[in-house]
Amino acid sequence: MGSLLKGSLGTLALMAASEVLYKLYMYWRQSRARENESKQSDGNDITEVFFFPDKEIACKTHFLSDTRCFKDNCKYSHGKTSLSELYRYLSSCRKTMDVCVFVMTSEDLVGIVLSMHQRGVIVRVITDDEQETISGSRVWALRKAGINVRTDHSSTYMHHKFVLVDGKLIINGSFNWTRTAIIGNQENVIVTNHQKIVSAFHSEFEKLWQQFDPSSVYDTELTKRNREESESCGDFEKI
Amino acid sequence: MGSLLKGSLGTLALMAASEVLYKLYMYWRQSRARENESKQSDGNDITEVFFFPDKEIACKTHFLSDTRCFKDNCKYSHGKTSLSELYRYLSSCRKTMDVCVFVMTSEDLVGIVLSMHQRGVIVRVITDDEQETISGSRVWALRKAGINVRTDHSSTYMHHKFVLVDGKLIINGSFNWTRTAIIGNQENVIVTNHQKIVSAFHSEFEKLWQQFDPSSVYDTELTKRNREESESCGDFEKI
Repeated sequence: MGSLLKGSLGTLALMAASEVLYKLYMYWRQSRARENESKQSDGNDITEVFFFPDKEIACKTHFLSDTRCFKDNCKYSHGKTSLSELYRYLSSCRKTMDVCVFVMTSEDLVGIVLSMHQRGVIVRVITDDEQETISGSRVWALRKAGINVRTDHSSTYMHHKFVLVDGKLIINGSFNWTRTAIIGNQENVIVTNHQKIVSAFHSEFEKLWQQFDPSSVYDTELTKRNREESESCGDFEKI
Repeated sequence: MGSLLKGSLGTLALMAASEVLYKLYMYWRQSRARENESKQSDGNDITEVFFFPDKEIACKTHFLSDTRCFKDNCKYSHGKTSLSELYRYLSSCRKTMDVCVFVMTSEDLVGIVLSMHQRGVIVRVITDDEQETISGSRVWALRKAGINVRTDHSSTYMHHKFVLVDGKLIINGSFNWTRTAIIGNQENVIVTNHQKIVSAFHSEFEKLWQQFDPSSVYDTELTKRNREESESCGDFEKI
């Protein structure tokens, strides 16, 4: 009877232990899965900061063509610079490129946008209306290539300097697309795929894209003029 | 003999199970500790993006004084705006404030820097030499209060627009400290304590602070003049 009791207790203890072991094993599996997810997510995190001025302009041929630049007398830099890193991130674009930059006179940077467009990337550009027509502006080249460009049509500045690459990566800072910004000024650019930052800039771009839609600008101006005309006919105080 | 063997096997199984249980318990404890650490770290993460223009200028008295603003006819905004959020982050400073901003004409924003200085915060300011003397510039007020201000002394621009708060938080974007930037232009500001970004801007500030040290600028110019004079005496080709 005693040995039977002992045997039963032992069996019960083993059953309980196996149940606990199973629960702990499942917990361990879930923990491992979460850790792996976290590691994978970390692995994809991109956050970099670049500062200007560069000492030399980076060679676009060297960093962007399939074959590198082999010119002995190439006047551009073949070493890694802040600009060459921007080349890399901009040219990684595959589907959509939303450019929202105040001044665009750099032939090299505008050239990347043009080549993305030629490769089938859907490009949208927002820039400042006053800067569009300054000497050296390359906005005409974007329009000529058939890229959809919108401007603010206001006396204040569309002063952003950001690009959204494939809706997943944001490039933002103090950096206008000019030669002086590249090799003269003190400037910064943050490149990140931080979800909250990307999402905020994505919403801002969509908001401005609608706001600067030429047809809605026309509608708004027309509505405003009509309202003013109707108000001038009445005798009430202007709000 | 059979029951003795069963008993021994049962004891061994229980010992093994308890050993496994102990190991799994320790693993679970470590996992929980790691998860808690991660949660704590997430809880302290700050990443926000603000866009301008605001519709109205935020009332500094309302957002920064111990008592709120109760003026019935206050012409400033008492609602949350991008500027009121900047007020909040700037005024959270307790030890050091490193300001590196291209244009500083906003009396309100420069006022916060002045009040931080008065409260004992160690303030350092870098700005652009040409912008320092434009109409409306408030840099003179910073200098007058005894704040250490350095400029780039160059024909190119010190074009950054960032602030480091207590060396832990970075405020950066397209946003100059002007009235037009607040209520006119399309602008952005990222506020983050992301370690990699903060660290990069901290290094940049220290680099520029040394580079724009008036004594080192003077030394460099003196050294350059001496070298040029000595070179002009010799008969060798200029490098």
